[in-house]
Amino acid sequence: MQKLINDPDNYVDEMVDGMVSAYPERLTRVDDTKVLTRDSLIDGKVGIVTGGGSGHEPTHAGYIGDGMLDGAAAGEVFTSPTADELDTLAQACDTGEGVLCVVKNYEGDVMNFDTAAEMAEIEDVTVEQIVVDDDVAVEDSLYTSGRRGVCGTIFVHKAVGAKAAAGGSLEEVAAVGEKVIDNVGTMGMALTSCVTPAKGEETFDLGEDEIELGIGIHGEPGTERTDQLSAEEVGTHLTENVLDDLDPAAGTEVAVIVNGMGGTPLSELFIVNNAVQSTLEAHELDTWETMVGDYMTSLDMRGCSVTVCTVDDELKELFAAPADTPALTRAGDDE
Amino acid sequence: MQKLINDPDNYVDEMVDGMVSAYPERLTRVDDTKVLTRDSLIDGKVGIVTGGGSGHEPTHAGYIGDGMLDGAAAGEVFTSPTADELDTLAQACDTGEGVLCVVKNYEGDVMNFDTAAEMAEIEDVTVEQIVVDDDVAVEDSLYTSGRRGVCGTIFVHKAVGAKAAAGGSLEEVAAVGEKVIDNVGTMGMALTSCVTPAKGEETFDLGEDEIELGIGIHGEPGTERTDQLSAEEVGTHLTENVLDDLDPAAGTEVAVIVNGMGGTPLSELFIVNNAVQSTLEAHELDTWETMVGDYMTSLDMRGCSVTVCTVDDELKELFAAPADTPALTRAGDDE
Repeated sequence: MQKLINDPDNYVDEMVDGMVSAYPERLTRVDDTKVLTRDSLIDGKVGIVTGGGSGHEPTHAGYIGDGMLDGAAAGEVFTSPTADELDTLAQACDTGEGVLCVVKNYEGDVMNFDTAAEMAEIEDVTVEQIVVDDDVAVEDSLYTSGRRGVCGTIFVHKAVGAKAAAGGSLEEVAAVGEKVIDNVGTMGMALTSCVTPAKGEETFDLGEDEIELGIGIHGEPGTERTDQLSAEEVGTHLTENVLDDLDPAAGTEVAVIVNGMGGTPLSELFIVNNAVQSTLEAHELDTWETMVGDYMTSLDMRGCSVTVCTVDDELKELFAAPADTPALTRAGDDE
Repeated sequence: MQKLINDPDNYVDEMVDGMVSAYPERLTRVDDTKVLTRDSLIDGKVGIVTGGGSGHEPTHAGYIGDGMLDGAAAGEVFTSPTADELDTLAQACDTGEGVLCVVKNYEGDVMNFDTAAEMAEIEDVTVEQIVVDDDVAVEDSLYTSGRRGVCGTIFVHKAVGAKAAAGGSLEEVAAVGEKVIDNVGTMGMALTSCVTPAKGEETFDLGEDEIELGIGIHGEPGTERTDQLSAEEVGTHLTENVLDDLDPAAGTEVAVIVNGMGGTPLSELFIVNNAVQSTLEAHELDTWETMVGDYMTSLDMRGCSVTVCTVDDELKELFAAPADTPALTRAGDDE
């Protein structure tokens, strides 16, 4: 399998450089690290940071900018950033108001963010952490105790970023993050495996006519392998499973992400979206907003995930607030 | 090859529905057509429309919204919309100030837009057309007399959309479109063929270790097939070829798109971007802005294109002006 790369060993390093050279006025790389921060911090604002393995672009650094993240640490492909880098990240993004770390629930990420928090606290940086575990497919998994953190993290970034931009305290910002986590669920599926740069071939075998439901963003096993399903069957199955977990009352408003895994044409995501919306309607839910695109990918995997978040006035205001990042821009209401 | 579809015959129809159900407050479908328009037209503004074959998403309808397009017609996959649909499109987007059609240079598109313009003029809609032919790779091609229209069209949409939003007359709007066309060039490459929904298998054969340089967005033949190249070689080759065509003076400012073909991980595009920027620097050009992502795709093709547009104060102002569309949002300077 061919890829547009140079030396696989330099893949993440070169990607980080490529992001900075694309957005030199937005992003700054901390020397000798794979930590990116926004070009200049905002005094008096709680810092919002995240990090994790690479291969999920535009997650993580694509969401750095006004109204979302202040910084992100990139690990090697599908590998947690080191505690040292996460400590550097937290320190780099603190203006004295403390730093909120948005952690996806993988054992390596949780452990390294924990250690980094202890290291940063020694340097008088107050750190809070919230752990996203939105994947409803499986309870434990290959790299996870408890549920995996996947595309619902985008809603967490948006809410905590907006709350911090509005002047929220560290405690208040963490609280809205927890609120999103309590109200969001995601499930994914794959038509094909992803191909990591180091290996250069498919990570797992999936027959030409097989698909895998409930798969994770690193290709971790899901709930079942089945024969090929139609877009309608896929969209319905994923949405039903998420709703089964969230169990929202009829009439509830929801925000939705139909997310591509990296190798899926946008047109196919729109076709899946029809079934997602029909399923929401069948449950008498009211779609407040839908996002369709590649928000949290798995390299070149073909497949999609469906994320549903129930929203109230507070979350709607935070989700709709202005944001200006490479991967997500909201013009705001006054445009 | 599996795809997330239902009946291939309904692919475009369902995609158009999926776009409307994702963005019901932004997009309206004209009954019994594959024409999408913005939810409500702006009185006194020149209408900006485009169209072409499907399979290039987010092109075309993804650029409908404030500051860009008023409407777009979707043909079947890689097939021009009919003259009837394009006539409907022009009429639907006219508020009395006339309509500018942005046409990519393919024989079917040019012919059908020409016929549609004649039909619309009968209904007293003043129509101007501009034809984008930014692909520097080949002079004539499978579906083309003269050069192909590819990803440089995004810059055309942005400039004419901003000019129209600023109150420009039909003549003035067409003039800035021609100005972009005169100053933009693109070249693409592919690692793999795309797979159309109808055929379900690769459109053309490319060996496991081969790539094709100068390829079109429908998989039309390029300039050469070669053994696998590194990201650096690809980025350099494409950029050098575009610059060879544009021949900008040292010190010129340029806007750049590193565009994915649909199946390429975003991380790889950032790696290619390093070579693009190095090449621009070697030519003593000053990068004013870079966009990296999937702007004009070829279904699930793996590959990329590089677009360079030389910019002056007028084009920079138009490119930076606010826009709010599903695929491209600009917050504007006052954010």
